[in-house]
Formats: sequence, C-alpha cells, structure tokens
Amino acid sequence: MTLEEKLAQLYGLWAGASADGAEVAPHQHDMDEPPGLDELIPYGLGQLTRPFGTVPVDPALGALSLMRTQERIVAGSRFGIPAMAHDECLAGFAAWGATTYPVPLAWGASFDPGLVRTMAAAIGGDMRSVGVHQGLAPVLDVVRDARWGRVEETIGEDPYLVGTIATAYVRGLESTGLVATLKHFAGYSASRAGRNLAPVSMGFRERADVILLPFEMAVRESGARSVMHAYTDTDGIPGAADEQSLTGLLRDTWGFEGTVVADYFGIAFLKSLHGVAADWGQAAAIALTAGVDVELPTVKTFGQPLRDAVAAGELTQAPVDRALRRVLTQKAQLGLLDPDWSPLPPALAGADLDAPRRLRDTVNLDTAAHRSISRRLAERSVVLLRNDGVLPLGRPPRIAVVGPQADTPTAVLGCYSFPVHVGSQHPGTPPGVQLPTLLQGLLSEFPGCEIVTAAGCGIDSAVTDGFTAALRAVRGADVIVAALGDRAGLFGRGTSGEGCDAESLALPGVQQQLLDTLLETGTPVVLTLLAGRPYALGDETVEAAAAIVQTFFPGQEGARAIAGVLSGRVEPSGRLPVSVPRRPGGQPSTYLGARLARAGDSSNVDPTPAFGFGHGLTYTSFVWSGLSADSAAPTDGELRLSFTIRNTGGRPGTEVVQLYLHDPVASVVQPVQRLVGYLRVPLEPGETARISVTVPADLASFTGRDGRRIVEPGELELRLAASSTDTRLTVRAVLTGAVREVDHTRALHAGLRREEEEITLMRGQ
Amino acid sequence: MTLEEKLAQLYGLWAGASADGAEVAPHQHDMDEPPGLDELIPYGLGQLTRPFGTVPVDPALGALSLMRTQERIVAGSRFGIPAMAHDECLAGFAAWGATTYPVPLAWGASFDPGLVRTMAAAIGGDMRSVGVHQGLAPVLDVVRDARWGRVEETIGEDPYLVGTIATAYVRGLESTGLVATLKHFAGYSASRAGRNLAPVSMGFRERADVILLPFEMAVRESGARSVMHAYTDTDGIPGAADEQSLTGLLRDTWGFEGTVVADYFGIAFLKSLHGVAADWGQAAAIALTAGVDVELPTVKTFGQPLRDAVAAGELTQAPVDRALRRVLTQKAQLGLLDPDWSPLPPALAGADLDAPRRLRDTVNLDTAAHRSISRRLAERSVVLLRNDGVLPLGRPPRIAVVGPQADTPTAVLGCYSFPVHVGSQHPGTPPGVQLPTLLQGLLSEFPGCEIVTAAGCGIDSAVTDGFTAALRAVRGADVIVAALGDRAGLFGRGTSGEGCDAESLALPGVQQQLLDTLLETGTPVVLTLLAGRPYALGDETVEAAAAIVQTFFPGQEGARAIAGVLSGRVEPSGRLPVSVPRRPGGQPSTYLGARLARAGDSSNVDPTPAFGFGHGLTYTSFVWSGLSADSAAPTDGELRLSFTIRNTGGRPGTEVVQLYLHDPVASVVQPVQRLVGYLRVPLEPGETARISVTVPADLASFTGRDGRRIVEPGELELRLAASSTDTRLTVRAVLTGAVREVDHTRALHAGLRREEEEITLMRGQ
Repeated sequence: MTLEEKLAQLYGLWAGASADGAEVAPHQHDMDEPPGLDELIPYGLGQLTRPFGTVPVDPALGALSLMRTQERIVAGSRFGIPAMAHDECLAGFAAWGATTYPVPLAWGASFDPGLVRTMAAAIGGDMRSVGVHQGLAPVLDVVRDARWGRVEETIGEDPYLVGTIATAYVRGLESTGLVATLKHFAGYSASRAGRNLAPVSMGFRERADVILLPFEMAVRESGARSVMHAYTDTDGIPGAADEQSLTGLLRDTWGFEGTVVADYFGIAFLKSLHGVAADWGQAAAIALTAGVDVELPTVKTFGQPLRDAVAAGELTQAPVDRALRRVLTQKAQLGLLDPDWSPLPPALAGADLDAPRRLRDTVNLDTAAHRSISRRLAERSVVLLRNDGVLPLGRPPRIAVVGPQADTPTAVLGCYSFPVHVGSQHPGTPPGVQLPTLLQGLLSEFPGCEIVTAAGCGIDSAVTDGFTAALRAVRGADVIVAALGDRAGLFGRGTSGEGCDAESLALPGVQQQLLDTLLETGTPVVLTLLAGRPYALGDETVEAAAAIVQTFFPGQEGARAIAGVLSGRVEPSGRLPVSVPRRPGGQPSTYLGARLARAGDSSNVDPTPAFGFGHGLTYTSFVWSGLSADSAAPTDGELRLSFTIRNTGGRPGTEVVQLYLHDPVASVVQPVQRLVGYLRVPLEPGETARISVTVPADLASFTGRDGRRIVEPGELELRLAASSTDTRLTVRAVLTGAVREVDHTRALHAGLRREEEEITLMRGQ
Repeated sequence: MTLEEKLAQLYGLWAGASADGAEVAPHQHDMDEPPGLDELIPYGLGQLTRPFGTVPVDPALGALSLMRTQERIVAGSRFGIPAMAHDECLAGFAAWGATTYPVPLAWGASFDPGLVRTMAAAIGGDMRSVGVHQGLAPVLDVVRDARWGRVEETIGEDPYLVGTIATAYVRGLESTGLVATLKHFAGYSASRAGRNLAPVSMGFRERADVILLPFEMAVRESGARSVMHAYTDTDGIPGAADEQSLTGLLRDTWGFEGTVVADYFGIAFLKSLHGVAADWGQAAAIALTAGVDVELPTVKTFGQPLRDAVAAGELTQAPVDRALRRVLTQKAQLGLLDPDWSPLPPALAGADLDAPRRLRDTVNLDTAAHRSISRRLAERSVVLLRNDGVLPLGRPPRIAVVGPQADTPTAVLGCYSFPVHVGSQHPGTPPGVQLPTLLQGLLSEFPGCEIVTAAGCGIDSAVTDGFTAALRAVRGADVIVAALGDRAGLFGRGTSGEGCDAESLALPGVQQQLLDTLLETGTPVVLTLLAGRPYALGDETVEAAAAIVQTFFPGQEGARAIAGVLSGRVEPSGRLPVSVPRRPGGQPSTYLGARLARAGDSSNVDPTPAFGFGHGLTYTSFVWSGLSADSAAPTDGELRLSFTIRNTGGRPGTEVVQLYLHDPVASVVQPVQRLVGYLRVPLEPGETARISVTVPADLASFTGRDGRRIVEPGELELRLAASSTDTRLTVRAVLTGAVREVDHTRALHAGLRREEEEITLMRGQ
C-alpha cells in the first residue's frame, strides 16, 4: 500500500453533513470543507460516518444508500476494502424511525445490567441489519459535577455501577457483531465547573480509582473493540495526546487490541483548542503517536497534513503501520476482507433494490419486541424519591397534569436520541417513532378519569404568564402531577445535553416558581421529573411535595412507564444513580467523598444530599435479617456473607441490595464508602430470599502512594444497604497478611446472588 | 536530652484557650483536654501558642505574662531553653489594641510589594517588642474557587502576584527578627467546591505551576524560616503526611532550612479526619517522618503517643532528632540559647514590673505611624470597577449611605483581625482600636454635607423589612452610597472567613434585592463593597450602578480611605487580584484558564467575568506608546522591552502596568495568559514615564510532561496590559535554541522599572 492508501484506512468521511456541521458537534466551523467521496475513493476509505445519524432518512433507503457507497468504495479503490460504517447509539440507534430507549442515566437507575444487555443486543441487531459496523457507545464517564450537560449520557456517579452497566451494554452490542466504542477516555466528566470541554484538574490516584476503573472493567470483561479519546485535557495533557493512557495503560497494561478512534474533530483540536500542536500535521503526528488510530468524523489532519509530516521526516511510517494493522485486523474480524463479502445488509435481503421507491417503510427499526424492552427498562428506571402515601394514585376522579413536560412528546428523550439530536434540525419531519406524552400516558392509564393539563411555563423561559392558566387547571383536581425537568438538546438548544451545562442545580427557568405555586394550592402534588440531571428543590419544597418521582429521560415508552408507576400498575424499583442535592450550589460534588468532603463543622456549607446515591422507595417494605459473615480473610482471599430479605408489605416489590465498602484506615485518604456490588431482588408479598455475597479482598484495593494498586491489611466495614444513606446490615471484618499489589486481571466484582435461584437452577437441571 | 525532653521542644502549649477552643479552630472538640504548663515544664517546651491572640489582654500585661511564663520554663526545666512564642498576624498582629491592616486580598489589590513590606515590618516590630518570635503569616494559597471562605486571607488568584506580595511581606516581617510562616503548604485553596478542608483534586503540573510557585519564590527569596502544612489532602495525600512536598521539594530541592509547623490540630487530623493513621502515635510518626517538626497549637500526638511509638519501635529517634535540630537551630538563631538571653521584652524595658497595674496602657501597638501605613495600604487597595462619571463626588448637598456595611465598625475587618477573630467572642470588651464606620468616614470627608443612613437589611438575614426605611432615607439624596458585602467570622459566624464558605457568588442574604431596590429609585448609586470575596451582581445591576467601588476588608483606616476615593481626595489605584464573575454559578473558575476554560461555543455557560483580573479604573487616563522590543532571545536568555506611558488626563493617577505571557503552542496545555510582572506607575497630569522591562526566558517555563520545568523554543506573545482584559501593547517574540530544563534557582521575576527614576537617582548621587 502507498502511504496515501494506508492513511485512507485511518480516517472517516462524513457525507451528507452540512458544511459547518454545527448541529451535531462543536467547533467544526474551525475546519475547512472536507474533500468529497469521489476525490477520496481512489485511495480507499477507513470509515463512513453516520450514514443514518446525519439527516432523517428512511431506514431501507439509508441501507441502500450505504450499500451503494460501499460498492463505490470497493470498486473505486485498488484494494477494494469496504469502509466501516459507524453511527451513534447512546440511547438506541440514532436513526430515523429506530426505537428510542431510556438514556444511560436511566440504565444506572435500573441497577439492571441484564436488561441493559438485552437492550444493547436489540440496538446492535438493528444497526447490523442495515449495514452499520460500529456504534459510538457506551459512555463510561463517571459523574463528578452534576452541572455538566452530558450527565444524562452517563450511567451515574459510581465507577462500579458505571463499569458493570457499561460492560453489560457492550456485551449486548458486541453479541450482535457490532463494534462497541468505550468513551470518553478519560476524564471528560470532571471538566472544570461542569463546563463542556473545560480542563480537568485531577491527580493520578483519583483518575485511576474513579475515572479509569469502568474502562478497565469494560476492556477486560466486555470484549469492547473500540475506544474513543476524551476531548478534555487532564492536568494539561489532552486525551488525544495522552500516550500514557492510550498506549501504556490501555494496550500495554490492560491488553486492549481494538482500535482507538478520535472524538469528532478531536485531533484537530490539539492545534485549534488545546494549543499543543503548531499545525495540523503536528496534531496528527501527536495523536497517532499517542495511540489514536482513526480520525473521525472526516479526514482533516490524517490526510495531506500527515502525509506532509511523514514526507518531511517529522514522523516515521511505523505509527501509521501500527494503526493500519489495527484497523485492518478489525475489518478482517468483521468479515470486510473476506472474498465473499457482500455489501448487501440483512435488512435488504430479498428486496428489489432496483425499485428504491418500493423499499420505503420496508425496514422496521421499531418493532414491538424492542419497544417492549424499552418499556421494561423505562419502568425499572423510575425512582420514587418520596411518597407520603399519595401513591399509588388508585382511581382519582380528576387529575391535573401541569408543567412544561406534561404534554411534550420529546420530554422523554435525551440529546442523542435521533428526534432530538438530528430531528430537531428538520422541523418538518415526523419523529419516526411514537412519543406519547405524559398526558397521553395518564389518559390511557386512568380511563374514565378527568385529566386536565396546562404547561404553566416553558422549560427555560422566564415568563410566568402561564401560571394563571395552570392554577385554573388545577382547581378541583384531586391530585396535581407536576411535570418538570429538562429539554434535551445540543449546544445551547437545551437545558441538558452536550454543551448544555448548568450554572447551578436550580430547576431551569421559572419551574421552581411554578412548582411552589402549585404546592401553595394545598392540593397534593406528585412532582414528576423528566430530566437529564438531578435538581435541588430545597428542603421546604421537598417537604411540601406529596410525592416525588424522578426519571431521567426514559425513552419513548417512558410516559407509559411513569403513568404505570403513578397508578400502581408498575411497582417502582429504580434507585438513584446520582445524588439529588439539597441546595443548587455546592458543585462539584460526589457521594464518593472522603470524610472531609462531607458534612461536619468545618464549613457552613452542608453537602448532605436531599436524596443519596442509591435511594429509591417502593410501594412495599422489606426487612433484612439473618446476617452471617466471615470476620477475616487474607489480603488475597475473599469474605463471604449471607443474609435474608423478606417483603413484609402487601405488594410485590424489588429491593436493590447495595454493598458498600468502608475502609476506616488506609495509607491514602479513602471515600467514606463506595459501591462494590449490587443486586435487584424482586419479591412477592411475604416472599423471602437468602442472598449470599462474596467479596474478594481485591475490591478493597486502591491506588497507593506510588501508583500501584494495593490491598492493605486491617479492618474493613461492609455495609449491606438499601442506599448509600440507608445501611441495613453491617459487617466488620479484618484483612490479614501483608500489603499486596493487585494484579489488574483479578476480580473486579463482588458476587451477589439469591441462593434460591441456584437451588432452582440445580433442581431444574 | 531524654526522649521526653527532645519531644518537648517539638510541641506547643495553648494556655488560656477555652477547653474546646471552638471559637478559633475547627474540630478541636475531637481532642482531649491538653496537659497544663506545670505538668509539662520539667521537660521544657517548644512553643507558646498565641499569648496575645487567645483572649483580650492589655499588651503590656500580656508581655509581662509571657515573660513570667518564659521565666518559669527556663527555671523549671533541665536545659532552661525558652519557648518560642507565636501568634497570628495575617492582617496585623492579632492582639488586643494592635493596628489592624487591610486583609491580604487588599494587599493583592494594591499591587504594591514595597508598601506591604513596610506594613509587615511594622507588624513584626510590634510583635517582637512584646516578646513574640514567630508570626503565622503570610497565606500563599492561590484562589481557585471564590466560594472558599478563606479567599479574604489570600493575595489573589495569580501565583506570581501572590508570590511577589507574600515575599515582600516575609521580608518585612523577617527584617524585625520575627520568624515568618508560609502557609498553607499546599493546595488548601482548591478544596472541592470551595468547602473548607474538603479534598483537593489536582495533578502535579497544576500543583507545581500554580500552587507551589509562590512558595518556591518565598522560600528562595524571602528568607522565611517556617512553613505550615495544609489541612487538606491532594489526590489522597494529606498535607501533614506529604513527605514528597515537605521534605523532597521544600528541603531537598528548594533548600529550606527552617521549621515546618503543624496547622492547628492538623497532625491529629491524620487520624480523626483523614483516616490515614490508626491512632495518635501513628499520626505523629507519619507527620514527623514526612517532615512536620512542631505540633501546634498544643501537645497531643507528639507527647505520650509519640513516646509510645518510639518505645514500641514503630519509629526510630532519627526523625525526632532531625526535627529537634531544626527547632534548636532556630532558637539559637533567635538568641534564645544565648547565655545572656533575657526574657524581658523591649516594650517592658525600664518598666516597673512589680507594679503590673501601672503597666496597663503603657505599650502602644497602634501608633500613628502604623495607622498611617494601614491607611496608605487601604487607599491603594480600593478598586474602582465602574464609574459613569459620578465619581469623584465633589460636594453633593445630600448623601444617603445605605446598607448593612454603612455604619458597622467591623465591616472593615477580616476574620483574622483580633476584634473579629477573638474579640467577637468577648462582647463586653472594646475593640481596642478605632474603627470608624463608612458613615463616620463620609461625615468627616464631606463636612457640611447632609448624610443620612439606613442599614436596609442585615448581611445575611432574609428579612426585607428595613427596605422601607432605606427608601425613606434615600429620598432627596443626590447620591446613594450602597454599602454592601460580608461579615467576616469563623465557622458559621460570618459570610466570609475560615469555614464561612459560600454556595454561590450571589451577595449574601437579601443584599442584592436591596441594591436593586435602590437602583430602581433612579438616584445615582455608588455601590461600595466591603467584602472578603468577589460577588456576581448580574449584568443589569452592573449596568445600572453609577459606580462600583470594590474593597476587600481594608482595615481600620478603610472607611476613611473609601471616603477619600469617593470625594476625590484619594486617587483610586487598586486593581483586582481576583476576577469578579458575571454570574453567581460557574465556580471553580480562575482567570488562568486554558482556551477551553474560557468562552466559546462549546457550552451555554459563559465564564467571561464581569471585571477581569487586574482591572481597576482611575480618575485620569493614560496613553501607552513607543514600544521597542527584542524579537528573539535564546531559551536561556532574556527579552528586553520598553515603552512609554503618559498621563493624558487632568488628575494625578497611577497606572499599574501588567505584563502577561501568552504561549501559543506548548507541549502541555497552557493558560491563555498569566502574569509575569507588574509595576505601579504614579504619574502627575501630563507626566510621562519610560518603562523598561526585562523578561528572562525562564518566565516562559512550565512543568513538562515528565515533571521537569522546561522552557521550550518557539513563539511567545508578551502583553503589556492595563488588566488581563485590556492589553495595550503586544510583543511577539521567538525563543530560539533547544528545550532547556530550568534550574529552580534561576530568575522568577520580570524586571519592570521606570527609566526616569534611574536617571533621577543617578543625578541625585
């Protein structure tokens, strides 16, 4: 291969994107117009960018168009290597007409990796069926500042929760043959003051123990085949220039063998935004040397500038060849280099490709089966924060559903769902999927009930004129469902989403005023949040609300899921993947605080949350008892615990067992507690489950003073808890023996299981 | 010496503090009651803690009491070694009746190291005169989050400004024989979310280039003989346990030879708050090994627990001996080991010590000369942020001075000034110094003018009842002076000060409402802030204010200084040592932002400040011209520039020339600009000064990828500026040659000087 041909495999082309692309990524206006496909084809092409996620296109026609493009690439280049096609799939395949699922923060709230894996397999299947090879998900960023706009795209503020849920997602996606992409590697979520792209201040221990842990879990355990670098710099080193992480850690230590792809325009940003490269060629050389293999979304620095840099001797061909090997190995794995490779995607098999018009509507990316997965996940992600007994509602004669989220179809969608991400830029186009509003959900949930509605205000408008109509609507209502939250969007178009960072955690616009106005009526208010981040309501408001239902953009089935929880048809079983703060200031904050990060008499600012990480109520009650536990284990051993949970209420319900580790004395300051295991335990009324837990001593490991991960001997406290603020059973144990360096390949998980299930399984065999 | 005798030299005793000491430091309630003097004396004693700063005491009687205590220590112990006495001196000697000076943030605003040095010499002289040996100042923490309560104790948000002003302070203090104490080493100001003591997330490069730089300057250049560790942990390593910093960097690299003292209770906190020690003995061993030589304020871990640890072989005597050598060396330097050492302090020379009653009021710690220094520094620290022409006021017939700071004596004092720090806990005791209020200052400044006043509201109360009286007061006024800001205090007693952190940068309480109410009257409002931190007023309020005068607790002469600026008797010449934000959210923030920390289209949160670092108006105008500059220098050379400033207005005034460095391309992401030099240039109307500047290439150095400090060749931009947001002359130059590692002993300063002054000096000789 010539240098041109090699480099062609290392970049993508974003066809169909508008010239400035401003609708989907920042700062592209800094870029020149990219070359066209015809100009590039003779050298081949590494990646096709977003064939479905750029403009609304009928899935069958999109698949056909992608197929034709592949045919041109194969026919027009010397080696005839097809491109890999990639698309976004953060909360479902970001394609017109594809099922939209709850956002990742809702996956976190479900504490249900099994269902997330099922969802990801559904997403991957759809993508694969129309010819896509790679999906740019999941996001493994750990929330460090809830003001950050991309919080909705994360799984939560605990690295263990993020790592396990993300791993499940990757397994599901990869199970369909799709290449999953772990992003953003690493540190993006800790951008200063939660401002998108702002620098990250962080030392190597916090980075290793919090930020990198989920990536390590996913790389080692999920089979993810791609990683995307983070835009941000950490302590002055931009993600795309971070050889220590991209090569030293990811490949040399963790053994990753896939590709590292650029976040969109991220290589060029080394020059234009980070100032660590003097020109495009230098930016390309830095990124390639550090370990970025593929430039996305479209050729910029890996084209002529990189060729010039190699020609000028600023860079050898060795790093080019290294990246090329990785890309071609992946293409070979995907069958793209097979002699019998066909561009025909499964969805078009048997179709009459010469009559494109008749193809329209023949490919269904939103089947009932997939909607059902979306619905189940939405149901399990609804978090009941507070309930004075008003819920479930039973059959009230009159409900008023009030607020800017009450009757807004896109209120259930995050910023990477197609109707928001792309569709919002094409206002004439239908959303492609059914998006029942909360009002509609309530109308079907409560047949015969009189349901009135009013917006009251906009999401982020300062206008309170609508309060009067809202107050009129609630007159005579038995209950008010106050539907508040965020509008997802990109770069200033939303209150949540990429580039839509918040200055504080006060509800956007005048929503808090509307809420307080509704509370003053004395009619019971069920606050229902459809949001991308947690918001601080203030103690008085929380106290005054009859119930608070927190959802994080729950996808197209979300309104029905919420209505089901309100009626009691669906048992609430979600738990908070992020703390809900008491006050709008006080960020950055994390429940993973060391003692001095928490309440005390050292500051007049009290960071105690309104609702802690892991909190969530049910309509029933549980008693935990019968603890039996090891009191000691060697530093290379494991502790075994078991205990019993009984549903003592009158309804079915799901307890989410959470295991927190508290290390009272360590050579490096530790968080007061951190999650090391969890398990959803659904129980019928009166039903009992015995839960057994194994805790490898490895889980007590942390990054020591010298950067090695170690387990230290000494006391540990294991907290079996219903939430980070509700410990039910406590185990004190001692790790014995010497300080031990933990091999990174060892156990990263606690084992939690229902003993009954095992017995059942054995009986069934 | 026995082990007991050795250890006795390594701790202090806080006699006279209340049992729980809760009024002056956090978390002491965790401590046991310390032993008494009688019990300790037989072994000797290292330090006497706050003989003047614990309860209000007449200075002469305090000096006598200290002398008697020293006599008891000398007589009662085998080696007869006197204790060192230390006290606080953050904004003046923290003793009853001693002159209170502006707080450090006001020193920063003065950009006047010469006057700060003069002030420190005055403070040191007073302390020395009554028998004190060590002062626990200055604070070298660089502001990283303006919500932090101790911002008032810092010099500002730029390490070069902090380093130069702190160095001047140390030189002044040490010139009197006093031991200055650099604190807090290091990172405290970056506590998460600005919450006192909360963990610090920071990498080694940011730490080196921002946090450590002022310490390095002061250690190398000021002759400071003591350093105090920070309470906080950085990336999991508590300050008191940080051997790499306390020994590796401070002593082995920078050559520091003095003592490292504990922040109060900080060693015990290793067990009780950080959880890195299992017991007091281990806490002591960790701190001593890391390099903490002296436990303050009172013996706790360095007593029996440390003896037990040595006895148990957990620690050798070597680190004990190392600390002992440092302490005794310092005592020897201070003459405490001299055979003719006398406990009689200079202030009591010739006094009749047997008639203590007659001693009262014979020692004056608040002389006219010192008040004059305090006044001059206050005057130079007043920052005129905005002026639509209303200032100077001339002779208005009627002024209304309204707000909670209008007639409050302590409104001018920070939390470490004696009347606030200690006096506030003794409400019956007079403050000991004259504290004219702003109202009183205006009354003497504007004789014959009718001046009315109203508080309007409290500093942090939610009550708006006083607005009516305020509106009544302003009726018929020609101008309203709105006097708003903070109440300094400790641990919840104030809105600024140690432990008095803010959740956001909105004005405390209902002050913003009061201000907006006053603005609505249409009468011109001169907003006058007496505060400990910058506050965000919002664009509309800023626009509506006729003028904004920012002061940071300017000390006992502050009200007169402000009145002088309002009348025009005093020319405003202060500049902002911290940015004033536009919006109350958005922290942490610093003007030292890299490109992505600043405004752009990547976030809907715009961090652009209302008034940038270095901003400050005058009553005159200046034209900068005649730039002549080198265009290149080797990486081990220096660049020379010169230019002319002319006062083109009709009044005298002071331009503060600020030199910022912009490095467009570097191997590590750089702040867009950073201060590397400054000079106050007072000019009469029509007067011209030629300013010459030398910029050693060393100033372009930064901490590289591998931790070495390097200067890279390439382009630089030097900005000669009136503020960080107002560049007047720009120099583009090239550094040539190879990347060079910078020896830490090389130049840390740009040289800025007036050429005329030199000529005048030569003529005069």
